This record gives sequence, C-alpha cells and structure tokens, in this order.
Amino acid sequence: MEQDKVSMDKPSKVITCRAAIAWTANAPLSIEEVQVDPPKPGEVRIKIISSGLCGTDKHILEGKNRVPLPAILGHEGAGIVESIGEGVASVKPGDKVLMFPLPECRKCRFCLHSKGNFCLKEKILSPTGLMLDGTSRFTCRGRKIYNLYGTSTFTEYTVVHEIVVGKIDAGAPMDKVCIMSCAVPTGFGAVFNTARVTPGSTCVVFGLGGIGSAVVMGCKASGASRIIGVDINEEKFPGARAFGVTDCLNPRNLKKPVQEVVMEMTGGGVDFAFEAVGLTDTMVAALESCHVSYGVCVIIGVAPSDSQLSFDPVLILPGRTLKGGVIGEYKTRSSIPKLVTEYMQKKFNIDPLITHQLPFEKINKAFELFRNGHCIRCVLLF
Amino acid sequence: MEQDKVSMDKPSKVITCRAAIAWTANAPLSIEEVQVDPPKPGEVRIKIISSGLCGTDKHILEGKNRVPLPAILGHEGAGIVESIGEGVASVKPGDKVLMFPLPECRKCRFCLHSKGNFCLKEKILSPTGLMLDGTSRFTCRGRKIYNLYGTSTFTEYTVVHEIVVGKIDAGAPMDKVCIMSCAVPTGFGAVFNTARVTPGSTCVVFGLGGIGSAVVMGCKASGASRIIGVDINEEKFPGARAFGVTDCLNPRNLKKPVQEVVMEMTGGGVDFAFEAVGLTDTMVAALESCHVSYGVCVIIGVAPSDSQLSFDPVLILPGRTLKGGVIGEYKTRSSIPKLVTEYMQKKFNIDPLITHQLPFEKINKAFELFRNGHCIRCVLLF
Repeated sequence: MEQDKVSMDKPSKVITCRAAIAWTANAPLSIEEVQVDPPKPGEVRIKIISSGLCGTDKHILEGKNRVPLPAILGHEGAGIVESIGEGVASVKPGDKVLMFPLPECRKCRFCLHSKGNFCLKEKILSPTGLMLDGTSRFTCRGRKIYNLYGTSTFTEYTVVHEIVVGKIDAGAPMDKVCIMSCAVPTGFGAVFNTARVTPGSTCVVFGLGGIGSAVVMGCKASGASRIIGVDINEEKFPGARAFGVTDCLNPRNLKKPVQEVVMEMTGGGVDFAFEAVGLTDTMVAALESCHVSYGVCVIIGVAPSDSQLSFDPVLILPGRTLKGGVIGEYKTRSSIPKLVTEYMQKKFNIDPLITHQLPFEKINKAFELFRNGHCIRCVLLF
Repeated sequence: MEQDKVSMDKPSKVITCRAAIAWTANAPLSIEEVQVDPPKPGEVRIKIISSGLCGTDKHILEGKNRVPLPAILGHEGAGIVESIGEGVASVKPGDKVLMFPLPECRKCRFCLHSKGNFCLKEKILSPTGLMLDGTSRFTCRGRKIYNLYGTSTFTEYTVVHEIVVGKIDAGAPMDKVCIMSCAVPTGFGAVFNTARVTPGSTCVVFGLGGIGSAVVMGCKASGASRIIGVDINEEKFPGARAFGVTDCLNPRNLKKPVQEVVMEMTGGGVDFAFEAVGLTDTMVAALESCHVSYGVCVIIGVAPSDSQLSFDPVLILPGRTLKGGVIGEYKTRSSIPKLVTEYMQKKFNIDPLITHQLPFEKINKAFELFRNGHCIRCVLLF
C-alpha cells in the first residue's frame, strides 16, 4: 500500500489503498482494498486526511437518495494533493486542500454570473458517479466503483477534478477543516447569503445536526434576538443552547403542530425559518412557521428522491418567500478557502460542531452514532 | 334613489341605490335596488365613480374562489366620500378616494414592520363578507348582503372601513384611476418590490391580462432586456408587444412544455418569472422557467380555494426563490395615492391597460368580454 507516500513527481502509478465501499444501500460499508488510478488531465489525486459524515451520505445509505452504486461515498473532505494531471494549475503536490461537492469551473455562464453558485459542471442533481469523461478512477475486486458528486472522501486516496479543489492555508488544522467543505458553508451561507438574517430578528431552525447547528451559529452571529431550535432528539438541546438556541421544541412532545406553536411564540411567525432535515413535512412546517407577510423560509435539507413538496399556494401569496441554496450559495473554490482563513484568525469557531473523531476504519460506528443522534459531526481521521 | 346627491352633512339616512348582486356562483349578476346603511364609527360611505373587474371577481363568480354569498363583488374602485362615521379623520365628504382590498390600519405590528403590508385586519385570506363588527351594511329584498374583502365596488354606494380608504389628488381622472386600487400596484409592486427586476435581466410573464400587462410595463421600466409573454389567447399578443413583451408564447401551440421552451430560449432560465394566472400548473411552469441557481418566481395569481402547489423540492434547493405579494407589497393607503400622483405627473401611463369602458348596468357584458379574453381591463362607469 502506498498511502504513506506523497509523491512530488509526475503521477504515473495506480495507488492501492483502503476505501469504504457502499455495495448496496441498507448495508454497512465494507472497507476494502481499492485501486485508485492516476489523475487524467485536469484532475487531482488527493491523500485524504479527514472527512466528515453528512446527512446526505446517511440518506444515500438508507436508500432515500438514489445515486449509482457501488460507490465510495463521502463529500466533505480535507487532504493533501498527491499528484496532478496535465494542465492543472491551481494546486500542486503537497498543497493542503478541501474538495467540494459543488464545482466552480469559472468558465460557465452560471459561474460568471454575480449571483448563484450552481456551476454547470455540477453532478449533485443527477449524480452520474463518473468523472466528466464518463469513466471511473476507482476499482475494487476488478470492478469499477462509482464516485459521489465527483468527490468521494471515504477512501485514503481519491481523484477529483481541479474545479472542485480549493487550496487552503498551509497551517489549517486538517483534523477539523474537512467540515468546511459542506456543513459549515452550507449553514453559514444559508444565513448570510440566502436568508440574510438581520439583527434583532426571530429565527427557527428545524434539525439541529451539523448543518442546523452551523445555521444557529450564523443566526447568533447575525444578531438574531430569538432562535428557536426544533428537533425530535432532545439529546441535542444542551449543545444547541450553547450554539445560541434560545428555545428548544420537540414536536413529539407538543400538543399542536410545531408551526402553530412557533406562530404563537412569536406573535405571528418568525422572520427567518431554516429546514435542515430534508423531509417535505418539515419543509412545509418551516414555511408555515414564517411570518405570512415577510417571512423567509430557506430549504437546506435534501429531500428523498422524487419527493413532492405540496402546500396551498395561499401560504406564499401574502408575501412569504421560499428559497434554497447549495453550499450556502458560496462560489466554492473562490469563497470557502477564505472562510478557512477567517476560522484560523478566530473570527468564528467551528470546533464545537465536531463532537466526535474516529479513525477511518470505524466508519460504520460513526454512521451508527449519527443515526442514533449521538453526535453533531463525527470526523473520520485517516 | 339618492345616488346623485353627495351630502356634506352628518350621515343619518339609509341610501337606496342600485347594486349588482351575486346571489350564487355560476349565474349572471343581478342589478337590484339595495339599501346601504350609514357608516358606523370608523367607516366611510362612498359614492362609486368607477370600478375595474379583476380576475379574482371572475374566479369568485365561477365558483373557484369561495366567499360568502349573496354578495356585492368588486374590489377595485374609485369614488367620492359621501359621508363619514364617527372618528374618521383621514378623509371627509367630497374627497376623491380609492378603496383597497387590503387595509393598512397603521397600528398592528404587521403595518408597523418595515417590510410587508399584510395588515392584521385583512379579510382576503378568510373572507367573512362582513364589517369588522360582524355585521353588513347592505340589504336587498329584506335580506342582508355580504361585502367582498371589506370593499364591494359593484354598487353605486358602498360602506368601507377608513383603513381601506386612500385619499387621492383632487384632479385624478376618476374614470381611470380605479385600476390603481388593485391591478396596477399588484403588477408594479411584483416587479419593483417583490422581484426587484434588474436592468438587462430576462423575464417571463405568465398571463397577459390586467395584472400581467402591468407586470410587463414594470419589467420594461426596470430595463429588462427580454420579456417573454405567455398566454393561451393570442389576441393579447399585439397589445402585449406594445407594453414591452419581446417574445410571445402560446403553450397550446408548442410541442414541448412552455418551461422547457423558455429554458432553451434563455440558455438556462430567466432571472425573473411572474405568474399572473392563478393556476397551480402555471405556478410550477413559472418556477421551472427560472434559472436554477438565481431565478426568482413571483406568484401573483390567486389559485382556486384549497389548491395544492406540488413540486419536487429539488427545484428550490439549488437556489431558486419562490415568493408572493399581495397588492405588490405596497402599504396601501400610504403608497398607492403617491402612485396616482406619479401617474398624473406622467411618470408612467396606465391608460393602455383600459381597453374597454362600459356603463355599470352592462356589468354582465363586461364579464363576458373578460371571460372571452377580449379585453385587458374593462372599467365600469357609474
């Protein structure tokens, strides 16, 4: 196995290393020996140092979000560039990098537009599991293995396109910054870019996991006067209060629908609602929790494939806003490395979001902690 | 009948005059003699001079939007104050006024909020057909008749709350400005307040009736570079082009869904979409016509009662915005009289929106013109 060598030379060899394979949904991941091809032109091979587990990975494993399998999941990773393909100019071997589930090609009209970040090269909405040339870089037991969103971080080495790689500060703490690939910018951006939470406003956050907690931190930093946290797992409430939640609600312990309780608590609805669960029921509850005239509801959670969000349009008519945003509407490569620098300058602290760290080989234990609601973010260390 | 006298004295007497009664849905209106009570405290009795016909009136008559019947419909009126109830201070007999389907009490926390206009005293969402004290001011053949949205303009005299009355310039042309009670601010506000259309942007407008045409005028005034108009009635296309539409589409003549055609025409979706039809299918088409990452879809049309808007939340997730606004999010009494003044200063021209004028007694003919798509706005003159 070559995972301990970081070559500074021209890449040429296949690397054999360990990866967690999702052969099917609804089964534990299987740690196996895989072959990772050298990077082709425009690609980067990265030695993974740490990876977060995101709700979307869990949903995929539970069969709720369909992606091509067998695959190497994981899309929230930090690592060191091992080798680069022809034409790669923005990173070189040895660079510390994050890899993002949303690319930034800087050439398409979507990237060049002042608003939005949904690069035309994205693979989130219709995941092919393949590189842009239609092939795979992973092989296991002689069989080609798909990637996830062009990323794949549950492996000692991965190959990704340069357009998903962001070089970060050489001093960045690699055991932590992986969650700045997805959870942190998704939560912060939902607050700062999508909702634009204002000082003194009232907020409600559905789902107090990694992204929901980052949303809470963002709302507090924006000066929200009241932050209502909603979760069915009360184990999360003490931590949520530490992040800034002022009122905790468990919908299972309420006599009325949670949106009615929020309406009553706030005298007519919150200014800003965030859905960080990924279920259409909680999306509607979040929308109904907003003030009828000026409330803004931000959808962050990824609903199961083929879901239908259904509501009477009279919910929207009087002035409510429903909006979404992927990775917090940050242009990933341009913006997120700056967030890492700001974190290192102690402008904000993401450390409390990481409640657990486990070695990579305990990945199934990490998913179990996640499923049982015992952790906010569990980071895998390689 | 006393409809020709405008008393400057303290009100005391019931006025007997003509009104169009909607006894049931799906039947012509019946012009009958009605008794209009004097205004109670906080109320204003108004001699109607002109009234527009709005799509919502049509939907109510077609049984699509449920309101208490029998009622005097109409909610887009201009008139002259005939008498005032105790405590009324903002208007006096003889004043020219507009009356709005959305009040502005200036006391509730919604009115006092910087954003939004959805006064707590509104009756649009759950119309009671009654004044705030729970009674009616209209009697016909000995039977109490409901009002519409606290307004009722298909009558020679009406009684409304002071909080829905806006005093306008004494020189305002009363045969035209009635459409500034609803159609014009709804369309303009959707563009200027809700969507905030930007110069050079691309827009699509579903429905080229009175409100849709006002939207087109607003988009043009905002400097939109392309305005796609969608309607199943091609009779509206020449007029729409005159208002500023650059491309006309009739979904019935297309081989693909209109949203796919708009996506292709604009290389990935418009910046701003407006739904001014009031059907959930066109709401979804408008949303799907928007750019996936930064498109904004504004719902203006009122869907039939108990409609369900259903779509895959993945439409919203990548960054689309869906929002609504009633009367263009204008705080009605404070803002709309200023729009009337600006119209009189020729800052914009609403006259082309009025394609027909008919005497009040031809109201059923006016609805027929409307149903057949032969007019943009038909104004009734009293």
